[in-house]
Amino acid sequence: MNYQRFFEDAIDQLHAERRYRVFADLERMVGKFPRALWRTGADTREITVWCSNDYLGMGQHPSVVSAFQDAAGRMGSGAGGTRNISGTSNPLVELERELADLHGKEAGLVFTSGFVSNEAAISTIARLLPNCLILSDELNHASMIEGVRRSGAEKRIFRHNDVGHLESLLQAAGRERAKLIVFESVYSMDGDIAPIGEIADLAEKYNAMTYIDEVHAVGMYGPRGGGITEREGLAHRIDIIEGTLAKAFGTLGGYITGTSAVVDAVRSYAPGFIFTTALPPALAAAATASIRHLKSSQVERDAQQRQAAHAKRILGEAGLPVMPSVTHIVPILVGDPELCKMATDRLLGVHGIYIQPINYPTVPRGTERLRITPTPFHSDELILQLRDALVETWDALGIPYGSVQSPQVSTSERIVPLLVPKSGG
Amino acid sequence: MNYQRFFEDAIDQLHAERRYRVFADLERMVGKFPRALWRTGADTREITVWCSNDYLGMGQHPSVVSAFQDAAGRMGSGAGGTRNISGTSNPLVELERELADLHGKEAGLVFTSGFVSNEAAISTIARLLPNCLILSDELNHASMIEGVRRSGAEKRIFRHNDVGHLESLLQAAGRERAKLIVFESVYSMDGDIAPIGEIADLAEKYNAMTYIDEVHAVGMYGPRGGGITEREGLAHRIDIIEGTLAKAFGTLGGYITGTSAVVDAVRSYAPGFIFTTALPPALAAAATASIRHLKSSQVERDAQQRQAAHAKRILGEAGLPVMPSVTHIVPILVGDPELCKMATDRLLGVHGIYIQPINYPTVPRGTERLRITPTPFHSDELILQLRDALVETWDALGIPYGSVQSPQVSTSERIVPLLVPKSGG
Repeated sequence: MNYQRFFEDAIDQLHAERRYRVFADLERMVGKFPRALWRTGADTREITVWCSNDYLGMGQHPSVVSAFQDAAGRMGSGAGGTRNISGTSNPLVELERELADLHGKEAGLVFTSGFVSNEAAISTIARLLPNCLILSDELNHASMIEGVRRSGAEKRIFRHNDVGHLESLLQAAGRERAKLIVFESVYSMDGDIAPIGEIADLAEKYNAMTYIDEVHAVGMYGPRGGGITEREGLAHRIDIIEGTLAKAFGTLGGYITGTSAVVDAVRSYAPGFIFTTALPPALAAAATASIRHLKSSQVERDAQQRQAAHAKRILGEAGLPVMPSVTHIVPILVGDPELCKMATDRLLGVHGIYIQPINYPTVPRGTERLRITPTPFHSDELILQLRDALVETWDALGIPYGSVQSPQVSTSERIVPLLVPKSGG
Repeated sequence: MNYQRFFEDAIDQLHAERRYRVFADLERMVGKFPRALWRTGADTREITVWCSNDYLGMGQHPSVVSAFQDAAGRMGSGAGGTRNISGTSNPLVELERELADLHGKEAGLVFTSGFVSNEAAISTIARLLPNCLILSDELNHASMIEGVRRSGAEKRIFRHNDVGHLESLLQAAGRERAKLIVFESVYSMDGDIAPIGEIADLAEKYNAMTYIDEVHAVGMYGPRGGGITEREGLAHRIDIIEGTLAKAFGTLGGYITGTSAVVDAVRSYAPGFIFTTALPPALAAAATASIRHLKSSQVERDAQQRQAAHAKRILGEAGLPVMPSVTHIVPILVGDPELCKMATDRLLGVHGIYIQPINYPTVPRGTERLRITPTPFHSDELILQLRDALVETWDALGIPYGSVQSPQVSTSERIVPLLVPKSGG
């Protein structure tokens, strides 16, 4: 076994399959979001970021940045230990109270990432429950899939947002068996939304627990930013609401909220929570400032929805294949991994517009896309620049124009959208 | 299935077994480390933290705090995305270069925690290598055990620091089979050190890869803080050196360093790395400032070693059962979980001294202990206060005094230390 050669080959294979990822070296600039400095060797250029998950630009909000700096100045740069061994800071305790309040739950628990929160919470809950059956939406995020896997519990995958399919699986399991339904509110790559009310109805009917991932919704939906469950008045019907502090709230970390008993069980039994250093107090303080701001301010949510709708309209009018989305996420179909990568390289190199290509395995083959996330700081002018850059790129590379119809919901081909060529596109 | 009652019962069981953990709500104070504010309901008291993993107090270092605040002021509070999708900031790129340099390796890769770095790196490396056999020290940290488990690879556990046992397992596997030896440099609960040179010899002899966890050593050992591998001139003989930014470096996050090929493979193939938000630029900048400071400054390392040695001497002279340790970690044997918990409650409540009880499963039953970590900021005066508080507590609760001999190294009872009563203790 030649280890060095083996790992070199593993990397070469990624290059050969055009799946090798190069990370852009970026420096965001407070007060100038979504502009950033892009470094390539000796060269540094100012570019526009169009694919940030800092969805509302809260990462540069004065109250968030000053809470961050102030807490660091008073309490230092780190937590100093695990939650159990000297790492539970007062800002973290306050943050967990704030999160419980945000979702109308008894308790909250913060993790160092959303990935860890899903993995740790799902695996712990399903492992504790005797003979638990997990029912998992087929498009769930990698972190949820890891949680399901690690639980060791039996699982059934239901077709994306298909409540009929879910019901048949619940029925087969019976009322008595422990069951955990795991799904997302906003699916981040397509921008569609789960039928949360119907799933809650089924959970009640068949006595199942419900676990929802709201990472692409918290801060952005609901009158206080409590997510889609808040907007639709359904938070009280879902057992565990999981979210992130690293997207719309502009900081770092993930969390769950639920009854004191469930949250305490995860707190007590999850190794990925117990044996890891706590989030620094400065990040907790910044997250609390962000959540509190968005609980009372509607301005950011309105501006985000306005600019997302505007971008969809402007890009659609130019004949670009904007995929159907009922959220702030604006996917544009390319349908080919090589073209997708070439398009984003050209957008960055020629137009100073940074969008990452979204290829397999993140999305199914044949649905490779650009995923655009307009924030309140993407002005009408920036949207026009984006349109012109996309049109130039589409023309230069010969990518098909056309409108994209909602995909058929049936079987596994379901998620391949239909491209309808546009006359004059 | 009554879910609510089920989880309530799970918590009740922890109470019944006296394993329920209550996290102390602490507020550390820059300029006053190791003092902190302890909140309990309406009451707030100033206490001394004696169990922090901010081993050198770098979390309050002016250059670290100002790097943290400055970067947040310029770049905001969060990364804004995963490493691949807009989250790779310039400070993070610089940090990875700094870490590679620290350990004399080609490349470095940063994770949001040390737990994730171990879990993701070990599982990815062992999963990629065909038919890999993992050889893992029996006292490895929970995060390494998770990494081993998740790889799905076959594993053999070797007795703690027992190179004879390790060799027999290597021999049985043969030279041709892919093998990964996974171990720590400093074992954090006992404060002992692995025979790194001998393990490297065996790895060479039997053609195995080596993976070392240096989380309790980086910053603190070696002329530039490169850990025990640097101190002993062995870094170039170990394939992957893993460390943390959340202990001696005083910030948050974990990392690996190694050849470009290995690091790139983990970067490209580990879901726990790919699908998670990047570390915020402010934390990366603070970590870089901390590493750079400790690369050139020996003052903190010397002061830590001096105060740790002083504490061992003073506590030992008082007849307290200080367990043998060749590092900055000072474990004191209690040997009973109830007494251990009562002792730490009394230390905090009566003496304003915060030390967490270390009970099963973190350490074997019968070896329950206090784990004390003197930093450069634990003055001689604080050490005398600690001694007096411990003696009062030992007397009040009737905990045995006596010196602790090195444990027998053989079979699974090996780690139960022998308490030799002291005359007049």
